[in-house]
Amino acid sequence: MSSDIHFRRIALIGIGLIGSSLARLIRRERLADTVTAYSRSAATRQRAKELDLVDHLDDDPGAAAAGADLVVLCTPVGSYSTIVEAMAPRLDAGAIVTDVGSVKRAVIDAVAPRLPENVHFVPAHPISGTEYSGPEAGFDTLFEGRWCVLTPPAGTDPDAVEKVAAFWRRAGSQVDLMSPDHHDMVLAITSHIPHLLAYNIVGTVADLEAQTQREAIKYAAGGFRDFTRIAASDPVMWRDVFLNNKEAVLEMLGRFTEDLASLQRAIRWGDGDALEAKFVRTRAIRRDVIEADQA
Amino acid sequence: MSSDIHFRRIALIGIGLIGSSLARLIRRERLADTVTAYSRSAATRQRAKELDLVDHLDDDPGAAAAGADLVVLCTPVGSYSTIVEAMAPRLDAGAIVTDVGSVKRAVIDAVAPRLPENVHFVPAHPISGTEYSGPEAGFDTLFEGRWCVLTPPAGTDPDAVEKVAAFWRRAGSQVDLMSPDHHDMVLAITSHIPHLLAYNIVGTVADLEAQTQREAIKYAAGGFRDFTRIAASDPVMWRDVFLNNKEAVLEMLGRFTEDLASLQRAIRWGDGDALEAKFVRTRAIRRDVIEADQA
Repeated sequence: MSSDIHFRRIALIGIGLIGSSLARLIRRERLADTVTAYSRSAATRQRAKELDLVDHLDDDPGAAAAGADLVVLCTPVGSYSTIVEAMAPRLDAGAIVTDVGSVKRAVIDAVAPRLPENVHFVPAHPISGTEYSGPEAGFDTLFEGRWCVLTPPAGTDPDAVEKVAAFWRRAGSQVDLMSPDHHDMVLAITSHIPHLLAYNIVGTVADLEAQTQREAIKYAAGGFRDFTRIAASDPVMWRDVFLNNKEAVLEMLGRFTEDLASLQRAIRWGDGDALEAKFVRTRAIRRDVIEADQA
Repeated sequence: MSSDIHFRRIALIGIGLIGSSLARLIRRERLADTVTAYSRSAATRQRAKELDLVDHLDDDPGAAAAGADLVVLCTPVGSYSTIVEAMAPRLDAGAIVTDVGSVKRAVIDAVAPRLPENVHFVPAHPISGTEYSGPEAGFDTLFEGRWCVLTPPAGTDPDAVEKVAAFWRRAGSQVDLMSPDHHDMVLAITSHIPHLLAYNIVGTVADLEAQTQREAIKYAAGGFRDFTRIAASDPVMWRDVFLNNKEAVLEMLGRFTEDLASLQRAIRWGDGDALEAKFVRTRAIRRDVIEADQA
C-alpha cells in the first residue's frame, strides 16, 4: 500500500525549489523519521535553517546521505556525477537513490556507474515547477495533480521502483513509467524547446534599443509576458538541461525551425490560406490539452 | 472630463470577443443612448441577440453605422477596407471612426482614404484579449488595467482623439499615443512573434507520430501548455495580423532566428557559459515586466 510508505532517513541533495518542496511535504506526510539536506552554498543552508525545513544540514553530500534509506538528488543535473562520486562510499547497502532531473538518459549515464552494486537507482522526473528558485520558493503542494515519470533501466529492483512511485503518489502526483530516451524526446518538445524559445525571445528584446525595449516591457500583455515568466526559471538548471539533452533538443529544434521557416515564407508571400490552415489546426491540440487536464 | 463622455449612438462593427466586451461595458457605463452592431454571420447575430448585447443587430455595416457618432471596427483587420467602403456613404458628418486592430500602419492605409472628409478616424489598439472568441467570450472588465494605444495620423482632430481616449479610460484602460510604425514594430516583438512561435510549436507537435503527440499533450505542464493557450487564439484575426504587419514581423523574426541559431550552436558545442549568460540576462527583463505591471 502506497499509504504505508515510510523511510527511516531521507537525504535531500539540494534544497532549492524542488528539494525544499519535498522537505515540506515529507514533514507534512510524516514520510521519514529524519530528513537531512545538502547544499553547497552557505547562504542557502542558512535560509533553509531559518525556515526549519529539515533536521540536519550539511555542506558535504556524503555526510548528508550517510545512513539514509532514500537519497533524492535535487541539484542541477550537471552536478550529479561529482556529487554521486562524493557520496557513494557513504551510502548504506540497500539504499535507494532517486533524482528529480529534467533529463534522464544523461542522468543514468552519470549516476548508475558511480553507485555501489548494492544501492538501487530509480531515475525520476516530477513534471512540476515554477519560475522561482531557492529554499523559500518551495511549497508542499507543488507536485499535486502533476505527473511524475520514472525511467528505471532494465533490471532495476521492482521494490525500489514501487517505493519511489509510492513516495510520489503521497506527494499527490500520478506516476508513469517510460524509457529514458523516449522521456527525453517528449520533454524536449513539451518543456525544453518552450523554455529555449522563451529565453531566446526575451534575449532578443534585451538587445533592442532602449526605447523600444522599454515599450516592449510596458506592453508585455500581448503575449510576451508569458514568455518572460518562463524565461525567469533557474539559469543553471536550464543550462544543464540543454547540455544534457543535446540530441533530442537539436532534433526537435530542427523540426521547429523548419516549420517556422515555412510560416515565415507564408508571411513573406502573403499566403493567408496557409497561415489560417495552420492556426486552425493548432486549436485542436489545445482542446486535447484541456481534456487531458480534466482526465 | 473623461467621466462625462457620452455618445448618442455607438456602432460596433463586429461583435466577437472585443466587440461584445465593449457592448457590455457601454451598457454598464451608460456610454451611449443606443448601441448597434454588425455581424456578417447569422449565427453570431443570433447569439448576440440571445445575450441581449445591443439594441439593434444588422447584417449590413452601413445600416449599423448610420446615425452613429462613434463607430468601432472590431472585425479582423483584413475586412476593414471592404467594410469601410460599404459604410462610408452612410456615415454622419462629424462621426468618429475608431478600431481595435492589432496592427496600425496597414489599418490607416486601408481605412483613411475610404472615409469621407468630414469623418474623423482615430486608430486604436487595446492591448487586451483572451484565447476565446465570439460574442459569448466577452466580459465588461476585459480592458481594465490594460493599455490602449492610439496612433492618430498627423492632422487628426484633437477633440476626436480625446473622445476616443476618454472612452478607453472609462473602459479602465490607460491610454498612450504612438506613431503607427513604431506601434507595429513594438507589437511585432511583444505580441505577434510570441503568437507565431506558439502556433508554430503546437504545429510541430501536431506533426509528431501519434504516441509521442499523445504524451506531449499529457505532459504539457512542462511549458507547452502556455503555448497551446496562446495558439488557441482566433485564426482569422491572427492570419490578418501577419498579412498586415509583414515588414515588422519579418524584421523581428529575423532577429529572433539569428539569436536562436546562436543558442542552437551553443547547445551543439556544449558551450555552457554562453547558455548560462543568456539565461541569467533574461531574468532582468522579467523583473522589469513585473515592476511595470505594478507601476
